Amino acid sequence: MSSPSSVAVVAESRPGERRVALVPELAGRLRARGFRVAVAAGAGLARSSPDLAYTNAAVRVTPDPVPGADVLLSVRPPRPDDVRRLAPGALTISFLPVREERALVELLRDRGITALSLDLLPRTSAAQPMDALTSQALVTGYRGVLVAAERLPRFFPGFVTAAGTLPPARVLVLGAGVAGLQAIATARRLGAEVAAYDVRASAPAEVGSLGAEFLDLGLPPLTGAAGYARVMDPDRAARQADLLTPHVAAADAVITTAAVPGHPAPVLVTRAMVAAMRPGSVVVDLAAESGGNVEGVRPGVEQVVGDGVLLWGGADVPSQLPEAASRLYAANVVALLEHLGPEGVRSPDLTDEILAACCVTHAGVIRGPAAELLA
Amino acid sequence: MSSPSSVAVVAESRPGERRVALVPELAGRLRARGFRVAVAAGAGLARSSPDLAYTNAAVRVTPDPVPGADVLLSVRPPRPDDVRRLAPGALTISFLPVREERALVELLRDRGITALSLDLLPRTSAAQPMDALTSQALVTGYRGVLVAAERLPRFFPGFVTAAGTLPPARVLVLGAGVAGLQAIATARRLGAEVAAYDVRASAPAEVGSLGAEFLDLGLPPLTGAAGYARVMDPDRAARQADLLTPHVAAADAVITTAAVPGHPAPVLVTRAMVAAMRPGSVVVDLAAESGGNVEGVRPGVEQVVGDGVLLWGGADVPSQLPEAASRLYAANVVALLEHLGPEGVRSPDLTDEILAACCVTHAGVIRGPAAELLA
Repeated sequence: MSSPSSVAVVAESRPGERRVALVPELAGRLRARGFRVAVAAGAGLARSSPDLAYTNAAVRVTPDPVPGADVLLSVRPPRPDDVRRLAPGALTISFLPVREERALVELLRDRGITALSLDLLPRTSAAQPMDALTSQALVTGYRGVLVAAERLPRFFPGFVTAAGTLPPARVLVLGAGVAGLQAIATARRLGAEVAAYDVRASAPAEVGSLGAEFLDLGLPPLTGAAGYARVMDPDRAARQADLLTPHVAAADAVITTAAVPGHPAPVLVTRAMVAAMRPGSVVVDLAAESGGNVEGVRPGVEQVVGDGVLLWGGADVPSQLPEAASRLYAANVVALLEHLGPEGVRSPDLTDEILAACCVTHAGVIRGPAAELLA
Repeated sequence: MSSPSSVAVVAESRPGERRVALVPELAGRLRARGFRVAVAAGAGLARSSPDLAYTNAAVRVTPDPVPGADVLLSVRPPRPDDVRRLAPGALTISFLPVREERALVELLRDRGITALSLDLLPRTSAAQPMDALTSQALVTGYRGVLVAAERLPRFFPGFVTAAGTLPPARVLVLGAGVAGLQAIATARRLGAEVAAYDVRASAPAEVGSLGAEFLDLGLPPLTGAAGYARVMDPDRAARQADLLTPHVAAADAVITTAAVPGHPAPVLVTRAMVAAMRPGSVVVDLAAESGGNVEGVRPGVEQVVGDGVLLWGGADVPSQLPEAASRLYAANVVALLEHLGPEGVRSPDLTDEILAACCVTHAGVIRGPAAELLA
């Protein structure tokens, strides 16, 4: 019998990153599958997962879990320093956007590491339990609505009081992928009147099923690979902006989540459209880090623009709900490790549909979809 | 025919006060009832009711609407300077807590002003449309939940995802008056599991009707005058704290709203109880300005206490939702002016049940319940 594979959970080092790749509650599942787990001291959530919580979950807490680890877990791409201290054949699991991390990918290749990227999981039902892009987008969409509701100077729900009736807030969600649909559901929960728009053909039914109004602008859908949105040409963008203008102007809160994989976020809301909004309105741009859906947005900045409109640019949004985000991320990572098993860590089956898609480097080679993206 | 009564809306001057006593949308109702309305320039909501909105609603915007006004409207008690510039027989409507404002009440009396206090409206169905304590408490309760939800590092609703199930947050509401019931309703909307406690006999049914669990501590109810809570003796307070401790410890978010009219807020949550809470939990004390329900709370301050618990002390909470709060307050004030009518401003019928209760000074005399409170 081989000795159990050892899993190291590092402390995230990127400024603004407040998640952790494994929460104590899920450590038992890894142990049951034959993994030994060690976590870097202080890696846990500042407020809710202190070192003691890991110790109580029978996880070893150590200043440096990296040397000798078979698996390195992180949320953000692993640090080059840590990669250099792993033995050849070790495996890393993290978000790893290969185009932005070309140098790191080459280092992983040169060190003989098997690097799995959660950005490259296939969109299949078998991969769903591991789908960290989806789980973190869910956090983002929920958070976007709470940010808007907390900053709007009026109620989200309608109120009937002895002194009269207040109508519900009107919320417009632009981009109805996972984050957008979660934003719609949360705004509906809070009693707002919600409308939404998305270029993809599947959007009207999904929006409608959540009790929101889909804005039919009379434009053809733009669905691309794997069900994601496609880039639009300038003419379409201009027409769409014209048609969206009155809906943006009528909204109390606008929440934008539109993304096109591999491209900057599309600008959906121009300065002129914001200028036409009622003072006191709130715009939450959840795509601010990838360029923004709203002209003039800056990630991590809350600014008053136009005639008194609050524009909030998201930055590290899942880290603003670190416990929920980490819990879901850890569940995704644990599902992937359960799928691999301790043996799979040492010799991954690269004919497996999931691993074939998300394995970026193995045995000194950049492989599969990652190789195409970097070609 | 007499000339219409003139109503002056002042700009609030107290630091932290962001409401306005009349919003443009309701000016038409006053005009229809025979009032002329003028508003101080800049009195409106910074972001959502600029001067132009009043002008568009046919309200006169003027640097100083006070001289010659028959009625002075404000949210906070009128400024002594403004009172001195009113003609004898003029009428003021505002919050006016007479014990804290004894000098102002004496000035109002000496100047021959008819001062109505919205703190002293009777709790009758006829007075409900004017009940600004209730309308502002509604805002406070809603806001308290949004503050907690925006700061909790986990979701309020439960989530079932491909990677596993997250249970809903557990929210405990202490004090189930208007603010507490609104907090319960809002937390339930957001999908939290809600429990509540209140000393009054009517609380269990009201809490239960909102889908929350009433904590039956096995203690006798403490209902006082007009259905408000009574002061409790130290023994009862200590027993109650003991019995509440495990419920506080189990909660992800605690929202407190307990008040006893004419007394400091009761301390319901001690330092030891907060220390027993899970790190990452959030405590929102909506009674912080009247002393606080949570030991160590400070109004307007957000602090990390105990083992990583966030303690938020409310200050000017309705002003944190200025549009909703002003809209409701204005509706209350307009209802009171509709009840009075232009003639009632000049010669109020002090046998009227509502006016008899809330009229603090008239014709040089401190009257009714106000006189008793100041005796």
